[in-house]
Amino acid sequence: MKLISLLGATGSIGTQTLDVVRHHRQEFKVVAMSTGRNIDLACEQAHEFKPKLLSVQSKDDYEKVRHHVPAETKVVYGEEGLLEVATYPDSVILVNAVLGSVGLGPTLAAIEAGKTIAIANKETLVTAGHIVTEAAKAHQVSLLPVDSEHSAIFQALNGENKREIEKLILTASGGSFRDLSRDELKEVTVEQALNHPNWSMGAKITIDSATMMNKGLEVIEAHWLFDIPYERIEVVLHKESIIHSMVEFVDHSVMAQLGTPDMRVPIQYALTYPKRLAGQSDERLNLSEIGKLHFAQMDPKRFRCMALAYEAGRIGGTMPTVLNAANEVAVASFLDKRLSFLGIEAVIEQALERHHVISGPTLEDIKAVDEETRAFIRSTVN
Amino acid sequence: MKLISLLGATGSIGTQTLDVVRHHRQEFKVVAMSTGRNIDLACEQAHEFKPKLLSVQSKDDYEKVRHHVPAETKVVYGEEGLLEVATYPDSVILVNAVLGSVGLGPTLAAIEAGKTIAIANKETLVTAGHIVTEAAKAHQVSLLPVDSEHSAIFQALNGENKREIEKLILTASGGSFRDLSRDELKEVTVEQALNHPNWSMGAKITIDSATMMNKGLEVIEAHWLFDIPYERIEVVLHKESIIHSMVEFVDHSVMAQLGTPDMRVPIQYALTYPKRLAGQSDERLNLSEIGKLHFAQMDPKRFRCMALAYEAGRIGGTMPTVLNAANEVAVASFLDKRLSFLGIEAVIEQALERHHVISGPTLEDIKAVDEETRAFIRSTVN
Repeated sequence: MKLISLLGATGSIGTQTLDVVRHHRQEFKVVAMSTGRNIDLACEQAHEFKPKLLSVQSKDDYEKVRHHVPAETKVVYGEEGLLEVATYPDSVILVNAVLGSVGLGPTLAAIEAGKTIAIANKETLVTAGHIVTEAAKAHQVSLLPVDSEHSAIFQALNGENKREIEKLILTASGGSFRDLSRDELKEVTVEQALNHPNWSMGAKITIDSATMMNKGLEVIEAHWLFDIPYERIEVVLHKESIIHSMVEFVDHSVMAQLGTPDMRVPIQYALTYPKRLAGQSDERLNLSEIGKLHFAQMDPKRFRCMALAYEAGRIGGTMPTVLNAANEVAVASFLDKRLSFLGIEAVIEQALERHHVISGPTLEDIKAVDEETRAFIRSTVN
Repeated sequence: MKLISLLGATGSIGTQTLDVVRHHRQEFKVVAMSTGRNIDLACEQAHEFKPKLLSVQSKDDYEKVRHHVPAETKVVYGEEGLLEVATYPDSVILVNAVLGSVGLGPTLAAIEAGKTIAIANKETLVTAGHIVTEAAKAHQVSLLPVDSEHSAIFQALNGENKREIEKLILTASGGSFRDLSRDELKEVTVEQALNHPNWSMGAKITIDSATMMNKGLEVIEAHWLFDIPYERIEVVLHKESIIHSMVEFVDHSVMAQLGTPDMRVPIQYALTYPKRLAGQSDERLNLSEIGKLHFAQMDPKRFRCMALAYEAGRIGGTMPTVLNAANEVAVASFLDKRLSFLGIEAVIEQALERHHVISGPTLEDIKAVDEETRAFIRSTVN
């Protein structure tokens, strides 16, 4: 029985993680979890999974929830609550499925507590990749990817020698607007952007898919997870999202992981690794039914956010922190209809241009740059 | 330095094996080799690779060749010559790239001599799979696949647990006649059949591709190599031959190996396993250039030979021996223009129907059935 801490239980990855647990009660138990604003769902989940610890966002939520959870569930809240969940003594693995750079602190705390990290929170690696990977190394802790692309690469590397990697090839569906021209992008609405063709995901990542910032963040995440330089990480458009990503080796052999777009597969793999357990959906990949898989080159002019991410990644230091913080606020502003779709990349570019990069930043540097960038974007947008 | 015995040096796999050796002189040396009828090429190869032992087909060839090879090269011939090459004391690995069931004896001898077997000679496994795999187990010898499909599966199984396999998915290009109807197949010529769309291979395997018997033989080969029952081995049409084959696991995750159609990649992998060395061609897989990959269901009525192979495989015993022997003679008869293209499957079916299967056959049973089947097909065709 593997005991799990889960951050972000009410989000898209969180609920799917609980679905995996639901289908493998003999294998997994969630002992500690944190939830977002949906406290009704949080109470429901608490009754179903009976965690020992539940962290909610605010004192208000705490007051609302505490009498509506099972007797065995202790309720906590806020940033300290997140840390308590992440480091809960019984758990051996932390599934970090919160959104944004708020996931950084709990991840580092869990690493220091010696827990395996299943990381769905890519912003943590983007904003502080060198700190997180060094901490993991120092504490001999594994970072297991949950993103479908990184899980695919991780699986393609099973039994392989990392020194024999030629390059990583991330596939990109192209998001909601993959068939629109730059001109057409000027007029798109929030509702259109939220309509992803393949994956059902949270709002932030769906917008990130439409701007292709998601793929840019994934490139940076891949750089840190697999320790591969940016010039050996490629992105190819693949609109069906069936090949989840690939690794090319020095002998020209390419290993790929395929499947129907179902996040429960990579989530489960992170939980069962190095084993595999039965999948829960009846749907299996049927290539002859699908008939065709399409591939096309990325156009860096069309997908400006991805180009910005590569640039920020290559410069390094605090540049990816700026990229990520600017993007988080810009996307929130777009969702609030205070910024146009193309405005997202424009304000991120401004933030990157005005930033004086700090190399080898400390956690404090990163926090300061993160806050400063958010303030700048807020002032620019309003 | 890995010392190699190579059976079938002048054939398609043989020359490509030597090309791999040519590009990795620090890693490999061919110490013993056997050749086919092309003795001019054999002499050339002997001068370039300077093997200690060279086996030719006949006493005649022996007389012609012996004064035209380097002084250090001992020349032998015939079946005994093959055995001497296969068991050459210095070599650690046998690359078996001869054609047809003649490869069986040398393979078993090499297994008994404790050599790793890189097996391109699928007829050996088809005709006597249980004997070869049992011998390999008894002598703790590895059977490494050279066929691109089996190499793909072998690579997809890297670091995986075989008990977690759901099914094997072999891809099939469909061969020279994949777009013809049954009616159109009645009139096809040898020249048309030899024109394979993707792979440049020997004549026999090219015809086997056109009849789809090749895929049938590969299903039986996969059954023995990976110890998977026939109902969990699927074939999917994939005309580009880019995905070389796949493994689906119990968690619905599918691992695939991809590449441009270049046999040197799987040959080299068998030689370097578990390592990978630099590839030699400049051509690398470029999916965005390829644009589309196509997949379609197999039609067992359209591809009768493959259905016969599944049937023979399921029945087991001497049935696959009959399938293979009948196919070898039928294909030779087609190449000699003494049998029509659809005549191939017809005579194989006759041979299977009249055969009284022997379960758990000995090597002697197999040899007898093999000879008896060949005689039957010859009498039927003439």
